[in-house]
Amino acid sequence: MENFEFYSPTFFEFGKDTENKAGELVKRFGGNKVLIHYGGGSVVRSGLLDRVKSSLDNENIPYVELGGVKPNPRSGLVYEGIDLCKKENVDFVLAVGGGSVIDSSKAIAAGVVYDGDFWDFYQGKRIEKALNIGTILTIAAAGSEGSPDSVITKEEGMFKRGASGDAIRPKFSILNPALTQTLPSFQSAAGITDIMAHLYERYLTNSTEVEVTDRLIEALLLTMKHEGPRVIENPDNYDARANIMWAGMMAHNNSCGVGRSQDWNSHTIEHELSALYDCAHGAGLAVTMPAVFTYTMNHNVMRFAKAAVRIWGCQMDFEHPEVTAKEGIEAFRNYLISIGMPKNFEELGAKEEDIPKLVNVLCRGDGREGTISGFVTLNEEDCTKIYKMMV
Amino acid sequence: MENFEFYSPTFFEFGKDTENKAGELVKRFGGNKVLIHYGGGSVVRSGLLDRVKSSLDNENIPYVELGGVKPNPRSGLVYEGIDLCKKENVDFVLAVGGGSVIDSSKAIAAGVVYDGDFWDFYQGKRIEKALNIGTILTIAAAGSEGSPDSVITKEEGMFKRGASGDAIRPKFSILNPALTQTLPSFQSAAGITDIMAHLYERYLTNSTEVEVTDRLIEALLLTMKHEGPRVIENPDNYDARANIMWAGMMAHNNSCGVGRSQDWNSHTIEHELSALYDCAHGAGLAVTMPAVFTYTMNHNVMRFAKAAVRIWGCQMDFEHPEVTAKEGIEAFRNYLISIGMPKNFEELGAKEEDIPKLVNVLCRGDGREGTISGFVTLNEEDCTKIYKMMV
Repeated sequence: MENFEFYSPTFFEFGKDTENKAGELVKRFGGNKVLIHYGGGSVVRSGLLDRVKSSLDNENIPYVELGGVKPNPRSGLVYEGIDLCKKENVDFVLAVGGGSVIDSSKAIAAGVVYDGDFWDFYQGKRIEKALNIGTILTIAAAGSEGSPDSVITKEEGMFKRGASGDAIRPKFSILNPALTQTLPSFQSAAGITDIMAHLYERYLTNSTEVEVTDRLIEALLLTMKHEGPRVIENPDNYDARANIMWAGMMAHNNSCGVGRSQDWNSHTIEHELSALYDCAHGAGLAVTMPAVFTYTMNHNVMRFAKAAVRIWGCQMDFEHPEVTAKEGIEAFRNYLISIGMPKNFEELGAKEEDIPKLVNVLCRGDGREGTISGFVTLNEEDCTKIYKMMV
Repeated sequence: MENFEFYSPTFFEFGKDTENKAGELVKRFGGNKVLIHYGGGSVVRSGLLDRVKSSLDNENIPYVELGGVKPNPRSGLVYEGIDLCKKENVDFVLAVGGGSVIDSSKAIAAGVVYDGDFWDFYQGKRIEKALNIGTILTIAAAGSEGSPDSVITKEEGMFKRGASGDAIRPKFSILNPALTQTLPSFQSAAGITDIMAHLYERYLTNSTEVEVTDRLIEALLLTMKHEGPRVIENPDNYDARANIMWAGMMAHNNSCGVGRSQDWNSHTIEHELSALYDCAHGAGLAVTMPAVFTYTMNHNVMRFAKAAVRIWGCQMDFEHPEVTAKEGIEAFRNYLISIGMPKNFEELGAKEEDIPKLVNVLCRGDGREGTISGFVTLNEEDCTKIYKMMV
């Protein structure tokens, strides 16, 4: 096992009606004036925003608001949020929404206390300080509620890039599974896919002998395998929602990533799809992962066979482990289709003729020099083939 | 799933040579003067204590020392530590050792900033504040390095009792698996047993539909099942030690305990054994658990069948699930014997004629009114029968 640091200091308040503790928690974590940051109408229509405001009012904590975050959150609104926080002397950012809202909140929180352009952080500069952040999660997916990561798309060029730093870890996250019960099935399924991708990306490693991490990943993938279809079949199944919501946090606070290398090629390849077509990240991953896994399978066929046996219940073919490995990938692909995810470019809304452009941005954009690295290092030819497998 | 809070803010520094970061971490977490608290000779003989001191010296952090912690740590040394810290204006307690040293450090850290008798906390008073604590772990077992818990034995009456509070969570814990390679096999096995007990106690629940927690527990038990015998066979197996050390932390920071009821009857019943005979806690648990599990099995036979199938690889007997349940308990018992743990009172050094005394302290000591509660509520008759099953 490689040396590592693990740090996940976020306070999690989990369960029914926990959004009513927002004010109490902002106070506990030192907030005096809050920016409530959110997305579109559902947070307003459902009454959630009003409940959050009441909770802040009860603690006499003043706030300003900024809505309008879109999926694949944009830099434009981040600049707006930074200006608003500076003007209003905000010292705490409260994200009410999903991963996009939380990621946008993290960018704002870091940008407010930084003299330069916040985009510097998304070009590799480490985030050292930020305003305190709290979250009220409305979709189980990105894991941003327990992670030090943020992904933002810059409008000029549509570059989708990530930034990281302990300073943007939420001080608290409120997770009420009931808030996810009103999600459309497609969004629930996209979230489920994203969570499973976070687990698979950590499973695809070139390190050996880290059994504890393998087992933890398998545990959460088995949970998702069990609970995913139950949520699609019955959106009001609170317990299934709860298991998925907690698994989604555990999948991405790096509990399942310690002590070894990780992949992230599927994420990197998908990011260009959602940046260009504005598709749901999870839907893009559903199309990307089976292609990437099939293309890279022979790099370590036993790793894919292990996943096939332990997660998907395949029988091990001891004479032809590649058959088992392939069966596991197919089982995963069929699972994703069964919960309503797209299976190819067409269903995703992507176009074959864009592949050269996708590959160019992927492998040459933002300082990259022709390859992306993870479980396997992939060059432009590899990436072209992988995108073509998705058609 | 029941509502819950989860908070595990400890910073973990894991891997080879990480004890040399002690000084840097004490500084990062605000320590100006340190009490180094430890047990016996091995920490001194191995040179670990000197390396820790050098690390503090490098950061110009002054320290005082208090050694002499014994397994099942005693209140007497805690009082001594509290006096020393007050006299020397210590503001940070650095535990160098195993669970006993860490638990003693937690008691000292809480006692220094409390006007009353620190034992109040072990009689149910919540710990609200304490000096900051760091740990350098030398045995994978108690999980105290990532928990808010401490267990101390009061010399008068030999009461062994626990206290808890976020204030005594370590600010940082240094986990170097190589430090555990020199442990005698018996101690390694006792540690393995304790870790598995922490997992089983969380598995024995009366709540339903918390699949994520079941799966996480199974993941860590499967890890222990795989790595335990490898460590006993080859004490220098770093990777096996590392997997066990991390599983030991995860087993007890409540990652595997969210959203539902837990048991802790086996721990409670064992505590009287180690208090009376001063045996290793893990060894006591190895004798206690199979008896408790067998006695309470019919309370929820499917739960034990699930453990049997998923952890121990038993075939499910769909017509007689109690047969499968029993097989799982036997498999666990045989596993414990195979790594060198005692199987009965005699091997543990306990005496049948003490059973009335054990039951009396267990069910009547320290304010209890004739029963202990967990997965099943057990009265004096039940506890007598359980102790007799261990003979």
